[in-house]
Amino acid sequence: MSDAATAPEPGADSPQPSRRSVLGWGGAGLALGAAAAGGAALALDGGARTAPVAEAGAAVPFHGKHQAGIATAVQDRLHFAAFDVKTEDREALIQLLKDWTEAAALMTQGHPVGEGAFGGLAEAPPDDTGEALGLKPSRLTLTVGFGPSLFDGRFGLKDRRPEALVDLPKFPGDNLDPARGGGDLCVQACADDPQVAVHAIRNLARIGFGKVAIRWSQLGFGKTSSTTPEAQTPRNMMGFKDGTRNIAGTDTANLTKHVWVGAKDGPDWMVGGSYLVARRIRMNIETWDRTSLKEQEDIFGRTKGEGAPYGKKREHDEPNLKAMPEVAHVRLAHPDTNGGAMMLRRGYSFTDGTDGLGRLDAGLFFLAYQRDVRDAFIPVQLQLARRDVLNEYIQHVGSAVFAIPPGVRGDDDWWGSALFSGSGKA
Amino acid sequence: MSDAATAPEPGADSPQPSRRSVLGWGGAGLALGAAAAGGAALALDGGARTAPVAEAGAAVPFHGKHQAGIATAVQDRLHFAAFDVKTEDREALIQLLKDWTEAAALMTQGHPVGEGAFGGLAEAPPDDTGEALGLKPSRLTLTVGFGPSLFDGRFGLKDRRPEALVDLPKFPGDNLDPARGGGDLCVQACADDPQVAVHAIRNLARIGFGKVAIRWSQLGFGKTSSTTPEAQTPRNMMGFKDGTRNIAGTDTANLTKHVWVGAKDGPDWMVGGSYLVARRIRMNIETWDRTSLKEQEDIFGRTKGEGAPYGKKREHDEPNLKAMPEVAHVRLAHPDTNGGAMMLRRGYSFTDGTDGLGRLDAGLFFLAYQRDVRDAFIPVQLQLARRDVLNEYIQHVGSAVFAIPPGVRGDDDWWGSALFSGSGKA
Repeated sequence: MSDAATAPEPGADSPQPSRRSVLGWGGAGLALGAAAAGGAALALDGGARTAPVAEAGAAVPFHGKHQAGIATAVQDRLHFAAFDVKTEDREALIQLLKDWTEAAALMTQGHPVGEGAFGGLAEAPPDDTGEALGLKPSRLTLTVGFGPSLFDGRFGLKDRRPEALVDLPKFPGDNLDPARGGGDLCVQACADDPQVAVHAIRNLARIGFGKVAIRWSQLGFGKTSSTTPEAQTPRNMMGFKDGTRNIAGTDTANLTKHVWVGAKDGPDWMVGGSYLVARRIRMNIETWDRTSLKEQEDIFGRTKGEGAPYGKKREHDEPNLKAMPEVAHVRLAHPDTNGGAMMLRRGYSFTDGTDGLGRLDAGLFFLAYQRDVRDAFIPVQLQLARRDVLNEYIQHVGSAVFAIPPGVRGDDDWWGSALFSGSGKA
Repeated sequence: MSDAATAPEPGADSPQPSRRSVLGWGGAGLALGAAAAGGAALALDGGARTAPVAEAGAAVPFHGKHQAGIATAVQDRLHFAAFDVKTEDREALIQLLKDWTEAAALMTQGHPVGEGAFGGLAEAPPDDTGEALGLKPSRLTLTVGFGPSLFDGRFGLKDRRPEALVDLPKFPGDNLDPARGGGDLCVQACADDPQVAVHAIRNLARIGFGKVAIRWSQLGFGKTSSTTPEAQTPRNMMGFKDGTRNIAGTDTANLTKHVWVGAKDGPDWMVGGSYLVARRIRMNIETWDRTSLKEQEDIFGRTKGEGAPYGKKREHDEPNLKAMPEVAHVRLAHPDTNGGAMMLRRGYSFTDGTDGLGRLDAGLFFLAYQRDVRDAFIPVQLQLARRDVLNEYIQHVGSAVFAIPPGVRGDDDWWGSALFSGSGKA
């Protein structure tokens, strides 16, 4: 507690480390400051962040082998943004990624950006926009990705595009709005406080002013009890438990097998990374709400109350696929129906007000991390798009895919360092 | 604990009353059930709900002299919806308000609507949409209001329109989108869990299918620490503390003087009610973020860090209006500049993604309750609209005003009973 960063300012009334207690902290001694302030922070687990977190206000470590925000226990709120890169200057893009990395390392530990909300050049705008002052770190994670269009030749990256970073095919039933899809870069901000997630995206956008512009963004919410120890499976906007058989952040075997890019997968710069598919799935809420309970359960292949698979009693019982209708969602999406394919899902519900017809613009913002989309999202979604009876009630209206580079290893490393380096080695 | 409503179902793993523990509970013995389930609920305080609430999961009593959701300690999340009434049948509208009241009494106490997510007519859609199953009451409040257009003659209410329910004038600088304003009815849903607030609006919309349609809606967030005991003043999206000198829910004198409609104010059916002004205020975030700290502070007349008024040290110090620029926001909005006018503000920040130019569609959804808009919002906003230097950075893009009837007194009472009764007495 010898660091100025952790000394409460006079009159501070909270014993918790907070943004307020580090006002004016200028970024010197970052690693030490972050560690010292992290009385509430998690211990690094060999670089992976796999431990469930009980305390909603805590900080999640930024540095590690993998980026945080993937295996991290899911936070309550999301602000996701896709960016178009406006500069064509490779060096300017590299500088932006370095600046973003520095800001993310600060914000995720509960610090303001740069010199803070009251610092920076005299008579210039403050370095931080200030609306997160006094708020806890709130388990903020910031996860960066690179879209296929980043490799189109503007930045000399054409031959560095991973084979696995394919353009997604058009799936039956897709009704995609180009304004809600694609993007050269993405940032997934997750936190237990929406103001902390929004603050992070806003400050990254501000740092990137003139070099990048937000192409589209999405806010999402889960359910607050997802951070409680009992960790009930959250319900989606259709009222069903969603994610029962998801890959757990503590399941190292399945993470290695299905989520993290391995040394043999290549390219080298992606080892320890993953691939993210984002789909905005609008639900026809009003139609669904007029459907009988039996039909709803037949469509999913699970009971609505307990979430038990058909013919079983408990939510976590192994599904007997043959007991459910052939076109039930759970059956069609099950690994056994898809050659063992699994993804780590991290989606959020969304409600974006009302459309012009008085219907809720609501649904699921699906986010799934996987080792290779060609073996996971693409075949599973082809199966679902062709046969799933749920399609009567949902529509995919936005789509994007991103290569998620590995984690930032330390203060000298930055997002994408290996991609932009000559060797491709981290 | 003799009521079926409070008996945990087999396998329930939470000691807290929750929606899950009351599955299948059919609404019989409502008052008893609500009281019994309300181990975590507040005691009624002479009908007023003025006590601050520490526990985020608790239930706020539905019945009382005033509607909950006004003096209630502000919850973290908002889903606000304005409805157009589609039926022209007065009796159908009355039945809807009765049905809404019954559903609201259940949902605010953590119960599902009607027979629940698994009940109702066989082979018919369930009575409740189910996505709040397992979630705590989360201090949900539902507050209903009647817009000026409800009194246009369709329902025989022309002569019952309160004089104070005026159409708001056009203020200088207004850039109102009719699709984001007005409405015959409104429901303000506040809760500490967004899924609980969204669930409530959705189920009310569903109950009203064919009779009402959502005209517009708005989601909002505050900051999570607003429910903690220290109750720091939340910061708005401009990074400034907002609401420092707001009327507290425990300040009975100012509530009586400035918020609740009194017996002498009339009409009789509004006694114990209030008037609500809702304004969607878009902030030009990107422009603001390029403004110097000094200019930002001059505009507000408060420091950004502490929130102290100019010339003072602490946030809650009495402002010396003469120490701040004549056109500073705090000075122009202060009661001393406005003949003593005060409102109970209950606004939320919003971020609705990005506009077509890559700018955040973000700002403040301003909600203010007052005894008479003619003595409060209208003169204050005229002053601000004409002179406030903040206007360079904000724009009012949505507007509505509603008469908020008094509280529902008990199981036989319903929202608007006095309005629709012959006598006008509750």
